[in-house]
Amino acid sequence: MAYAFDEDTALQALPDVAPPGGGAGTGALAFTAGISHRWDTVGPPNGGFLLALAVRGLAEAVPFPDPITVTGHFFRPARHTPVELHVERIRAGKAHASAMVRLDQDGKEILRALGTFSDLAAGAGSDRSDARPPPLPPPEECLPVRELQPRQWDDLPGRMPELYRAIDVRLARPERREVGEIARLEGWMRFVDGRDPDVAALPLLADAFPPAVLDVADSVWVPTVELTVHVRGRPAPGWIAASFRTRFLRHGYFEEDGELWDSTGRLVALSRQMAVTRGERPR
Amino acid sequence: MAYAFDEDTALQALPDVAPPGGGAGTGALAFTAGISHRWDTVGPPNGGFLLALAVRGLAEAVPFPDPITVTGHFFRPARHTPVELHVERIRAGKAHASAMVRLDQDGKEILRALGTFSDLAAGAGSDRSDARPPPLPPPEECLPVRELQPRQWDDLPGRMPELYRAIDVRLARPERREVGEIARLEGWMRFVDGRDPDVAALPLLADAFPPAVLDVADSVWVPTVELTVHVRGRPAPGWIAASFRTRFLRHGYFEEDGELWDSTGRLVALSRQMAVTRGERPR
Repeated sequence: MAYAFDEDTALQALPDVAPPGGGAGTGALAFTAGISHRWDTVGPPNGGFLLALAVRGLAEAVPFPDPITVTGHFFRPARHTPVELHVERIRAGKAHASAMVRLDQDGKEILRALGTFSDLAAGAGSDRSDARPPPLPPPEECLPVRELQPRQWDDLPGRMPELYRAIDVRLARPERREVGEIARLEGWMRFVDGRDPDVAALPLLADAFPPAVLDVADSVWVPTVELTVHVRGRPAPGWIAASFRTRFLRHGYFEEDGELWDSTGRLVALSRQMAVTRGERPR
Repeated sequence: MAYAFDEDTALQALPDVAPPGGGAGTGALAFTAGISHRWDTVGPPNGGFLLALAVRGLAEAVPFPDPITVTGHFFRPARHTPVELHVERIRAGKAHASAMVRLDQDGKEILRALGTFSDLAAGAGSDRSDARPPPLPPPEECLPVRELQPRQWDDLPGRMPELYRAIDVRLARPERREVGEIARLEGWMRFVDGRDPDVAALPLLADAFPPAVLDVADSVWVPTVELTVHVRGRPAPGWIAASFRTRFLRHGYFEEDGELWDSTGRLVALSRQMAVTRGERPR
């Protein structure tokens, strides 16, 4: 049985397509993929899902398995029509390889991403940390997001994000906050269909919680301008524990910093996104 | 009088040069710049300086002044030979514009950067934060880095980083550490020649402190794999207060998270870089 995430990030090669605007030289690869409704937020598909799809494209161009740092810049909300991925191999060295990808939809670029890959299992690199996963109640004592009825969804009838039928996100309540934070959400997540987390899924999971800032923002649509995910380890099977926090809302922009931990208590990803509260809601 | 930073990030247009590997279509711009020794670290030029140079190139391709989020991936240490910048306009919308740039040196790509710009003075976006600048003693009570003789520089005779003759970095001592951090450095910085900070200088300043992690890393050369800078405000004249911290060293990789505050106590940038302790020292 194919899992939803793998089905929806499967790429079909487009060997004969040259990217619009040039770049058709050595190292260019092209793919197409459909965009399902399964990863929809209050409207468009989740940005983390699009970044995960982009990372699938990047992975085709590099000889290492782990996307240790990936950044996507989002240009417009995605729709549900097919996307084209145009991948450029930039460099492959002994320890790192890098590539770039653009996602085009309906003739317009919706996302550009840059990624560097490595092999986290190969290294003798040192480990050191004093930080701990967030202190969460067990998942069965947390609140499934799909059972929530936040104010923000009330005026979007019938649009409880599809994302929460595919990803079981459970929030720890009451919300805890650390010094200097204006918003924080913590909890657990896993794929509803039983797929275990892996490095390919981390960009999606890094953007799967509701925005922590919704309680304090002056708009309900807070589109991501840029999302960076650092993959710091390969997740063990089971639940991912996560925290997302915002400290600064300035000029309408805010950062959301995420930590993702696996079921053995190891950090597997750090994420940071810049988003904006001034966005117009997509039609 | 031209300031060192402006002299060294000045670009000369190369109107007739097409980027190697394609991309010569609409929207491509090319420039060249020299690389001085003034921004050298223990060997190669500082990565933040290179990102600032890249941002100069990006700025040529967009109609907005503020690089609200910029990410650079570093492929090899820079040398002191001229670089070519190949800039691609990606998109210009009503509120945001994005571009990509590659820096080539001696025929090899050394850096690829992606940036989104906005006009932070234009918005009616809201502000909210409870966070405060780091509690620092005044600059005159902090320790100038150029007077330090760290163990790490002892085996690099005569190579006290040139960077610290151009940027006056002053560290607060003794070092303070917050829960979960393995390393933290805090202090002040400003250009030695009196140039005031601005949004163009923030990518450099975000990488100008010595790596906080040096005390706990198993190597003295910790090259940056990727550096992301979020410009959150335009700095007022005067000293920049900054803190840099590391929480996780895993598989030899670590993040360094920075906060930059201006002299009026406002946050002007957040930075995060991924670096590696396993790097070979450049010759």
